[in-house]
Amino acid sequence: MKATILNIGDELLIGQVVNTNASRMAQMLIAAGIDVCGTFVVGDNAEDISSYLRHCLDRSNVVLMTGGLGPTKDDITKKVLCDFFDSQLYENEEALNNVKRIFAARGYELTPINRQQAWVPRCCTMINNVMGTAPCMWFEHEGKVLVSMPGVPFEMVNLMETEVVPRLQKYFRTDQIINKNILVQGIGESFLSDLIEPWETTLPATIRLAYLPQAGMVKLRLTARGSHDQRPLLEQQIADAVERLYPLAGQYIVGEDLESLPELVAYTFTKHHITLATAESCTGGALAAQLTAMAGASEYYRGGVVAYCNEVKECALGVQHQTLQAYSAVSEQTVGEMAMGVRSRLGADYGVATTGVAGPSGGTKDCPVGTVWIGIAGPDGQLVTKLLHFGDRRAQTIERTTHAVWAELIKLVKSTHQ
Amino acid sequence: MKATILNIGDELLIGQVVNTNASRMAQMLIAAGIDVCGTFVVGDNAEDISSYLRHCLDRSNVVLMTGGLGPTKDDITKKVLCDFFDSQLYENEEALNNVKRIFAARGYELTPINRQQAWVPRCCTMINNVMGTAPCMWFEHEGKVLVSMPGVPFEMVNLMETEVVPRLQKYFRTDQIINKNILVQGIGESFLSDLIEPWETTLPATIRLAYLPQAGMVKLRLTARGSHDQRPLLEQQIADAVERLYPLAGQYIVGEDLESLPELVAYTFTKHHITLATAESCTGGALAAQLTAMAGASEYYRGGVVAYCNEVKECALGVQHQTLQAYSAVSEQTVGEMAMGVRSRLGADYGVATTGVAGPSGGTKDCPVGTVWIGIAGPDGQLVTKLLHFGDRRAQTIERTTHAVWAELIKLVKSTHQ
Repeated sequence: MKATILNIGDELLIGQVVNTNASRMAQMLIAAGIDVCGTFVVGDNAEDISSYLRHCLDRSNVVLMTGGLGPTKDDITKKVLCDFFDSQLYENEEALNNVKRIFAARGYELTPINRQQAWVPRCCTMINNVMGTAPCMWFEHEGKVLVSMPGVPFEMVNLMETEVVPRLQKYFRTDQIINKNILVQGIGESFLSDLIEPWETTLPATIRLAYLPQAGMVKLRLTARGSHDQRPLLEQQIADAVERLYPLAGQYIVGEDLESLPELVAYTFTKHHITLATAESCTGGALAAQLTAMAGASEYYRGGVVAYCNEVKECALGVQHQTLQAYSAVSEQTVGEMAMGVRSRLGADYGVATTGVAGPSGGTKDCPVGTVWIGIAGPDGQLVTKLLHFGDRRAQTIERTTHAVWAELIKLVKSTHQ
Repeated sequence: MKATILNIGDELLIGQVVNTNASRMAQMLIAAGIDVCGTFVVGDNAEDISSYLRHCLDRSNVVLMTGGLGPTKDDITKKVLCDFFDSQLYENEEALNNVKRIFAARGYELTPINRQQAWVPRCCTMINNVMGTAPCMWFEHEGKVLVSMPGVPFEMVNLMETEVVPRLQKYFRTDQIINKNILVQGIGESFLSDLIEPWETTLPATIRLAYLPQAGMVKLRLTARGSHDQRPLLEQQIADAVERLYPLAGQYIVGEDLESLPELVAYTFTKHHITLATAESCTGGALAAQLTAMAGASEYYRGGVVAYCNEVKECALGVQHQTLQAYSAVSEQTVGEMAMGVRSRLGADYGVATTGVAGPSGGTKDCPVGTVWIGIAGPDGQLVTKLLHFGDRRAQTIERTTHAVWAELIKLVKSTHQ
């Protein structure tokens, strides 16, 4: 059971848009028990699209296409599909009603060009796209399935989740798949692998283990696979395996079924009903933005200060003028006062702070580019500070600093709220 | 002159990592006058890699590969290349010195496995990778070129910029390419196209025009192409074309050779020696993070407050308690006090503010999810506020709000500092 992904669009080919659709689609397919054997990007060119359609159908049971379904003349996927399957376009009533509904909601007049969005090849099953005007098209061909979806990411994701993946599972009677993620933090991948080897060797044959190293941590993914009537058994096997992992590696396990360190922070703070405030110099708002990108941040996040210049460190965070003078902005003393200051001024249980030289310029001999101090202030007067050294790549320094802050913060919270 | 891109790695295929390499590589190739005709992702599988190597060589003059060059056993690209070109691996001295230097700098011992990083096929030209241990390999085959690079993004980018692209230009004696970007803001793509049509029709045959719609604006890209001795002529033609565009569309042109709205803000504030502060509720630090992601932000950015809860709006920004009570947090009055408060408290020339319901929950009948107020406070007591309505997709609401803030801010600065 193999799938190929074919993303169509000049904007992808020339690098104007990063192809996030391919990774989203692959994740969804794999979670549903369908392996991906290749991903292809081609431009809005009839010959290329048609030749890769053929190529993908030869290599896999399922071909998922995105893109080229807009109303303008450079979007040619529908015409290519018609020629490929030797079919004709017709106006689909359900698709037309959907287009009319969307235009009415936006208060736009329906032009003949937009009405063409409701035309689909006769040989396909039209799947309504409630989020946009381009219909999804499902083709069955010699026991294989080809699906053409719009390239707009949220339209594609919604169609995949609600229609395409469930239909594929039904059509191919795919195995039952149960995934379980366990987040491990504070131990490297190879050491973890040695540590849990005795456990790994006892896993039943129905369960596969994958190591997914991520920013600042390792995600272990257990995947159980079997027929549909085996579901209760598989669930029990996964639960048993997780339970037996804790005696070995429990001290490094920071959460289950979470995806990232900021998610873990959100989960931990919400669970313990505690609050957080951020004081950022070199990360410049990245800590705050990572938390608030997730719904529900207002449950635990009070707010923060981006103290980019020294005056703001003084006026908004209460860092002492003498501290900045005597020790400089990038120092243990300054980051400590920032963390404690933001915690008390914003009325939070925990305060975190960053100050450093993100670069690529601005370094000195004593404080080279990549030097970063982080600080974590806790509810019982605790203050943890840490000096980090990164290179001269600004984006990487900012990203790694955020990982270090979340990791230290979680450590402190765990030691305080058992 | 066509190129294909072949990115190798299970982590790309299963969607664990988004394939940003493909778009970066495509951008660099196109800027160098080399068209891209396809991008392929395959896993760490010898048969697949070999079959797509063949496929790509058949379809293009240049094949650029990334990935699969690590020291672990799942990285097999080098072995596949050896088999493909019927060659043998040998230890390259320059590559070995590079590996030794990197291990010494990190204070690690050089193990036999890591030493294998210096082995390359005899039939290739080794290109030293100063940023990592995996060498770049350049193969010439029947008048075509195949280059294998590491998949680590910054290593790949450095190799492309300093070695691979210049060598390709020399090997294929590619045309001279001069690109010029013009940022246009405040007019839609189709209206712009109508407006500048008379100008477009007078462009010399050596110049191509591309519309690149982006977040909140349109980028016009002029590309001049010719032989190397034509460079002065091409430069003059580009300069003439830009000069003749201003009488027609000058009121919408906000900058040249810039890539994004935050870049434009940075450029504008630095040029006028003015400063900025941010007060964010619903954007939660995204404004600050966008500015501070760019080097040089400390030239003009004082800092900001992420006022996620109402108490922080009061204590850190000076929003009146009565204002929040009478009008609520998501109101014209609140956003105005936030913008003016952050401007004066942080001592900046301009202050910007956001408050809204990013969703997906938290909306009310009067203030549904997606309702956002933005405010811009200027140095002469100006205050611009604007009500926006987005949908219930949190990430999109945050992103679009930032575009709106930057666009309004630039408008106000332009009207103040002519």
